[in-house]
Amino acid sequence: MKDECGVFGIFNPQVDVAQYTYWGLFSLQHRGQQSAGICTADGKKMRSKKGKGLVLKVFGKGFDDLQGHLALGHVLYSNAGLDQEINIQPLRVFYDDGDLALACNGTINNAGALRHDLQKRGVIFNTTVDSEVVLQLIACSKKPTFEERVADALMQLKGAFALVLMTDKKLIAVRDRYGFRPLCLGKMEGGWCVASESCSFDLVGAELVRDIKPGEMLVIDNGEKEPVSKMWCSQMPDNCAHCVFEYVYIARNDSRIDKQDVYAARVNLGRQLAKETKGKFKADVVISVPDSGTPAAQGFAMESGLPFMEGLTKNRYVGRTFIQPTQVQRLNSVRLKLNPVRCVVKGKSLVVVDDSIVRGTTSAKLIKLLKGAGAKEVHMVITSPPVVDCCYYGVDTRDKATLISTRCSKDEICKEIGADTLNYISLEGMKEACTAVVPNDLCCACFNSQYPDGSDKVAAKDPVPVWLED
Amino acid sequence: MKDECGVFGIFNPQVDVAQYTYWGLFSLQHRGQQSAGICTADGKKMRSKKGKGLVLKVFGKGFDDLQGHLALGHVLYSNAGLDQEINIQPLRVFYDDGDLALACNGTINNAGALRHDLQKRGVIFNTTVDSEVVLQLIACSKKPTFEERVADALMQLKGAFALVLMTDKKLIAVRDRYGFRPLCLGKMEGGWCVASESCSFDLVGAELVRDIKPGEMLVIDNGEKEPVSKMWCSQMPDNCAHCVFEYVYIARNDSRIDKQDVYAARVNLGRQLAKETKGKFKADVVISVPDSGTPAAQGFAMESGLPFMEGLTKNRYVGRTFIQPTQVQRLNSVRLKLNPVRCVVKGKSLVVVDDSIVRGTTSAKLIKLLKGAGAKEVHMVITSPPVVDCCYYGVDTRDKATLISTRCSKDEICKEIGADTLNYISLEGMKEACTAVVPNDLCCACFNSQYPDGSDKVAAKDPVPVWLED
Amino acid sequence: MKDECGVFGIFNPQVDVAQYTYWGLFSLQHRGQQSAGICTADGKKMRSKKGKGLVLKVFGKGFDDLQGHLALGHVLYSNAGLDQEINIQPLRVFYDDGDLALACNGTINNAGALRHDLQKRGVIFNTTVDSEVVLQLIACSKKPTFEERVADALMQLKGAFALVLMTDKKLIAVRDRYGFRPLCLGKMEGGWCVASESCSFDLVGAELVRDIKPGEMLVIDNGEKEPVSKMWCSQMPDNCAHCVFEYVYIARNDSRIDKQDVYAARVNLGRQLAKETKGKFKADVVISVPDSGTPAAQGFAMESGLPFMEGLTKNRYVGRTFIQPTQVQRLNSVRLKLNPVRCVVKGKSLVVVDDSIVRGTTSAKLIKLLKGAGAKEVHMVITSPPVVDCCYYGVDTRDKATLISTRCSKDEICKEIGADTLNYISLEGMKEACTAVVPNDLCCACFNSQYPDGSDKVAAKDPVPVWLED
Amino acid sequence: MKDECGVFGIFNPQVDVAQYTYWGLFSLQHRGQQSAGICTADGKKMRSKKGKGLVLKVFGKGFDDLQGHLALGHVLYSNAGLDQEINIQPLRVFYDDGDLALACNGTINNAGALRHDLQKRGVIFNTTVDSEVVLQLIACSKKPTFEERVADALMQLKGAFALVLMTDKKLIAVRDRYGFRPLCLGKMEGGWCVASESCSFDLVGAELVRDIKPGEMLVIDNGEKEPVSKMWCSQMPDNCAHCVFEYVYIARNDSRIDKQDVYAARVNLGRQLAKETKGKFKADVVISVPDSGTPAAQGFAMESGLPFMEGLTKNRYVGRTFIQPTQVQRLNSVRLKLNPVRCVVKGKSLVVVDDSIVRGTTSAKLIKLLKGAGAKEVHMVITSPPVVDCCYYGVDTRDKATLISTRCSKDEICKEIGADTLNYISLEGMKEACTAVVPNDLCCACFNSQYPDGSDKVAAKDPVPVWLED
Repeated sequence: MKDECGVFGIFNPQVDVAQYTYWGLFSLQHRGQQSAGICTADGKKMRSKKGKGLVLKVFGKGFDDLQGHLALGHVLYSNAGLDQEINIQPLRVFYDDGDLALACNGTINNAGALRHDLQKRGVIFNTTVDSEVVLQLIACSKKPTFEERVADALMQLKGAFALVLMTDKKLIAVRDRYGFRPLCLGKMEGGWCVASESCSFDLVGAELVRDIKPGEMLVIDNGEKEPVSKMWCSQMPDNCAHCVFEYVYIARNDSRIDKQDVYAARVNLGRQLAKETKGKFKADVVISVPDSGTPAAQGFAMESGLPFMEGLTKNRYVGRTFIQPTQVQRLNSVRLKLNPVRCVVKGKSLVVVDDSIVRGTTSAKLIKLLKGAGAKEVHMVITSPPVVDCCYYGVDTRDKATLISTRCSKDEICKEIGADTLNYISLEGMKEACTAVVPNDLCCACFNSQYPDGSDKVAAKDPVPVWLED
Repeated sequence: MKDECGVFGIFNPQVDVAQYTYWGLFSLQHRGQQSAGICTADGKKMRSKKGKGLVLKVFGKGFDDLQGHLALGHVLYSNAGLDQEINIQPLRVFYDDGDLALACNGTINNAGALRHDLQKRGVIFNTTVDSEVVLQLIACSKKPTFEERVADALMQLKGAFALVLMTDKKLIAVRDRYGFRPLCLGKMEGGWCVASESCSFDLVGAELVRDIKPGEMLVIDNGEKEPVSKMWCSQMPDNCAHCVFEYVYIARNDSRIDKQDVYAARVNLGRQLAKETKGKFKADVVISVPDSGTPAAQGFAMESGLPFMEGLTKNRYVGRTFIQPTQVQRLNSVRLKLNPVRCVVKGKSLVVVDDSIVRGTTSAKLIKLLKGAGAKEVHMVITSPPVVDCCYYGVDTRDKATLISTRCSKDEICKEIGADTLNYISLEGMKEACTAVVPNDLCCACFNSQYPDGSDKVAAKDPVPVWLED
Repeated sequence: MKDECGVFGIFNPQVDVAQYTYWGLFSLQHRGQQSAGICTADGKKMRSKKGKGLVLKVFGKGFDDLQGHLALGHVLYSNAGLDQEINIQPLRVFYDDGDLALACNGTINNAGALRHDLQKRGVIFNTTVDSEVVLQLIACSKKPTFEERVADALMQLKGAFALVLMTDKKLIAVRDRYGFRPLCLGKMEGGWCVASESCSFDLVGAELVRDIKPGEMLVIDNGEKEPVSKMWCSQMPDNCAHCVFEYVYIARNDSRIDKQDVYAARVNLGRQLAKETKGKFKADVVISVPDSGTPAAQGFAMESGLPFMEGLTKNRYVGRTFIQPTQVQRLNSVRLKLNPVRCVVKGKSLVVVDDSIVRGTTSAKLIKLLKGAGAKEVHMVITSPPVVDCCYYGVDTRDKATLISTRCSKDEICKEIGADTLNYISLEGMKEACTAVVPNDLCCACFNSQYPDGSDKVAAKDPVPVWLED
Repeated sequence: MKDECGVFGIFNPQVDVAQYTYWGLFSLQHRGQQSAGICTADGKKMRSKKGKGLVLKVFGKGFDDLQGHLALGHVLYSNAGLDQEINIQPLRVFYDDGDLALACNGTINNAGALRHDLQKRGVIFNTTVDSEVVLQLIACSKKPTFEERVADALMQLKGAFALVLMTDKKLIAVRDRYGFRPLCLGKMEGGWCVASESCSFDLVGAELVRDIKPGEMLVIDNGEKEPVSKMWCSQMPDNCAHCVFEYVYIARNDSRIDKQDVYAARVNLGRQLAKETKGKFKADVVISVPDSGTPAAQGFAMESGLPFMEGLTKNRYVGRTFIQPTQVQRLNSVRLKLNPVRCVVKGKSLVVVDDSIVRGTTSAKLIKLLKGAGAKEVHMVITSPPVVDCCYYGVDTRDKATLISTRCSKDEICKEIGADTLNYISLEGMKEACTAVVPNDLCCACFNSQYPDGSDKVAAKDPVPVWLED
């Protein structure tokens, strides 16, 4: 499971905004490693630099001439279809009122239909990114002000989007009406910034002010003055739908999203699992699948009274490793990332805490490693329920057929991955772990098939999007 | 003086079109070294690869997945304002009927006004290239067929353009109504190709069939069948206006443009100069400024009876050399490219044949080198008249202030560059050297300020183009 | 503190030895990130590929023509003086009996004197690496067999070395007489391998057989037959001197060195510290400085009954980050690697477990971060005693002046780093944590100035080594 | 046929010597394109930077920290066996008196035997370059001064060498006793320089002072004072043996070697050929195979009265072009470099002037191109006699079997290459073209098998050199 992006925006006349955006993206790197880009503006014109790979690779040799006092950055995780130079965000265009740039985290589910309509009217598209449609809708809008044109465009969108727009003079931060994906506001000396996660603020020396509200549009055109807040969306739903998976897996431990500390939520997930599995198996030690399973394993240990130990060592240097095809059979590929610590594992009955089972293949390899290192028993406990349906809100699980839980029962999965027991947290248990969020304000669609905005139906009707064919 | 591009297109189901386009561009490299790009199509979809630098650099490691049976390529010379990744041609977009790509050689003089109008109607531009407007006009056109939409777009353009369009299924080659820039058609086994110069055909094994006619649109959608020819332009001018500077400097010696062999024209230019300067000075030997001045020097030698020798050696490895700023004063930068052959030059009275004097700085450095190597006298003879005005047809001389002939008399220039005598060919002499072209069919605007289509006035009225500000 | 290398050797006619050496080095990457190199041999000749940077960077595009059935690899941590292409190991030379290659982990303390003597006799050196002297001594030796020549050379060395030599036909693995640095033997299907740490064996599918003994020379020239073991050293000391810092910091958690599991030693270090500091302060939670402090923090938590939590999040993507000089003041550089988890830290009295305090600057920055995130109290506990002297055995702490403990008392350090309390483990406590090693067999010279082989005096007499001046 | 190197040295405290060496190498690029390297010294220590590819590629991004007031540079043409990083010159080592670097142009024919002897005495070699033996011999020499040690080493060498040595403080330029390869001395403001060809001096602003004499050693350790000249060689042969092929093909037109202007020699070669072939065929026009054949073609034209024209256009952008294997058959590979100018060639009887026929394959392809472009007749005239034997003096023609003239008669070759007539210059004619050199002072061994120093026998006895096996 992969989330598709991280965004960062800054307005600050007192600092080198490109450098700060670099740091902002650097701390959001876990949200996307495929490409990175930064756009800056100085009130008159825009400059941009983009490239494939990690932030460090793209900007490691400097920022060229990225000057200005406002900036926009983006990191992308991309599936194969989007893997082209033209699709690297931020997107930047020239419209009737100057330069315009956009960085988006999410998925616009009616992008195919909107694109089709626009093309029929003579509009040319330059990328296969779904959010290019937002720029075209803004340009086409007949509303008098820029903010009204943006609202006009957003009203036509279905799906999840936390996006930041930039003109030559201002930043506009927007969240969809359900608040699927996170976006928050920070204050720093001399300016403001927005980011997908609050961990960015720590690195650039900003303080988390608050989350952008679902349906809100925040206009930042001044380093000191409070940003102007408007609701772009007139018809708001009864509940929010914050992605629960941000707490389970996607976000960084040190972030706070919609008032919920991520680390605390994860410890709670572990505690809750310990409660729910009490008496179901006997074990000697709790270990985690690093890094996302670790806080939950600590919570499980606290609740169960079992010791928490590092049963798996993570290789810190893993990247795209070079493997000759003929050698693949001999090597358990998981070993490149994780290696059992024999003295912890040998002869022990283990509780292994992981965040999710999507396809099951990694779990199977992992358990094989642990048993190969002498583990007596492996009791898998999972901090999320079985993934039974697609996500249409920015996480790349569109291909339902690859989800093991759509075709196997829990017992079958347990057998297939080679575990002695397998337990998932309950849906309610998972929701309750996020103590700062009202349970009904969480989106759990991939676990319970309840799509808050009916995007499953929209996506089904949408003409097959060009960018998925590509 | 720099020409701005070379284009190459091919339709051939029997060969690897990317490889052939690579060769085509390779032989057009002299027309642009800033960037290179290739688009291919296989009847269903398009693929492209583009980059900065020489063809060899961009494609030296292969063509990735550039499959198909038709292809389009472009090499660009670019001024600073266009030096961005987004501006590398061929431009490629997604419109209502699929993929569309364009490669253009020339300058569209009302692009700024057209762009402005389109933006007012909600159209977004993605580059600062003037020819992007062509794609937008095609997409906006309400005409029923693709060919009619293209014609509809072209009718709105002012300026010089030799362009090739590609859809998923066919190539369309077009020349403006005056035929400013060259474009010719070749036939090879299994297919057809079009190119800025016929020297490309030699390398790919094609035969020159004919030049595309001014105002013509050629549709190639079959490897065997003769391409369909239409006149997109209904109101044709009385005369053509083929750029005379292609014969003087731009094109390669081994090309034939609008039925005139380039090498023959250059030899004639030299002969004519010898006739025109007879008795004006006494000299021992004729040398040239390589490479473009060499055939003319040979012609001058033949006519005058003086021996032709290589008085200047050209360094074959010159590229973007690394020079530390502090060292610049000590080094005559021309020496990196050209070095006098002392035994030819020393104690001799030289005729030095060059193609043009634009700013005068290079001539001055060159003469300094020759005198430093012991030349007794330097008699400069120039195979074109003084450049007194801008070119609006694809050659980068928009800044009239840099042209030495707009502010100095011939005698002043002679003194400034340090020559003993200076002689330019006459306008009529230059025209007559192109024996295969009717004199009135040549554009000599930069020499005589007669702009065939009034582009000087269009350009003056055009809102300052974005891409020149950039 | 940085260790200087990792080595890996393999003899196996059944596999692609370059690929396996790549994996071996990949799992030793934590021992050196400056450069990487692989040499292979096929019984007749050698091939090598080396470069600066991570294993992944150097070999990420493949192994070129690194064929053979035996191979040698090396990863290097290097101080500035050694940072040249010529110094990348394995070193490879041509001597009277063919090709010879060497990869070494350690420091040869009389290398300067030996080099000086050899140069006086007309020997040329090609690198500034201390172990080049080993190759020259082998080549100069008049002994009849290769093994005797190697022994002859080794007998002249003072210092720490775990080295692997390779000829066209065989591998020779050697450890100095004290066994300062680790080196172990593994068996795999079809062959043998040697490595600095046993974690390499897990990745290549080998089983740890045993450690190479101090003073032993192991000759591997057959994939099946047991390697021939000889003692190259006739005069063995009474005790070994295994570097205790391998257990504290250098080695990977999942390695076993000289029969001691590293993870177990670290947990013990934490337990011991908890015992030694009992009653000295009151705390709410135990956190670690990842990654090396984590097992010890777990041990501390178990022993003290306090909960272990992740108070610091490590950025997984840290490398050589690009920071503009002017921005440095504003940024706490430790934040690029570590960020406090506010919900763990805020309002809490923390036990922070770290492995060592060398210069004190990092600890100071870290404590500032934690207090900035709201920590009430910070109680630093260190799993090694104060570092009071240089290491002459392969760890880069030659500059005694930089060691904070040589000039400040414990209380002064506590104040300087901003901690509320500071406690180091006792020397005896540290030794006892390595339950599988006799305490007298551990080298603790940097903690107690007792240099087992008198290398402090040798190093003092040695003419200033060229490679440290460089 | 390829020459193997160019060398450049400079001593000048007033300039950035790395930059000047860069320019020096840049103007010697025609002598070697495989690798480039620069070493600088500042009186105390040396620094170097080397790499594969053109000078521009290796140094295009700057000189890092190449400071100093003396420097040494080298460009290499290399056969496959030498194509390794370790073999890039200048070679640099650490010997008993500091740093030592060497750059050599030539071939040491007893290097294998010397290397073998040294290895038997315990000497290690680090490269497979023949001239490494020179460094080892200097280091081993027991003579009291550095100059005497160099002389001691040189006395043991057989073969051709023009080499420059550099210590931390001085440059030493040396030429073998026959003066096979060129090396000359230049004076510039503030310092001295040495170079393989005088064309380097023009670029760096130096004046050619004189050639280094055969058997001479020139010591440069001062920017102003005249370099000290000694004869390192006590037993001088009666005649010199300057490589005649430098004049025919290798050197640049604008160089003067051993008092002979290269361009003048080439014009003379053409004139002489015209005399020798008078009446043998009837032709309309003289063309050349650019670039080396051009001055000779001009000479031929002058003497014969036929017009000289450019019948072949050279593509200025040729490098290592990317060609897909499957496309090779369709493409005449010579076309990538040379294309016929149809209007010159068509229907004409051509004299084609080329410098040599080595294997005959290129001539065959060329003539095919010319006939394909309509040439009526092709009369090949060659400015050197048939190549019938190996060169042991620095030109890469060791494989006698590839020389077409060792197995075919002139008539057979004429037929094989498809020419109408084929004529070589006579041996005497060639020698006489070099009017400034006594005929007996020219080495013509590859044309007449007369090896001045018996190197053919030395090479036969020499143990197969490692570097040719490699």
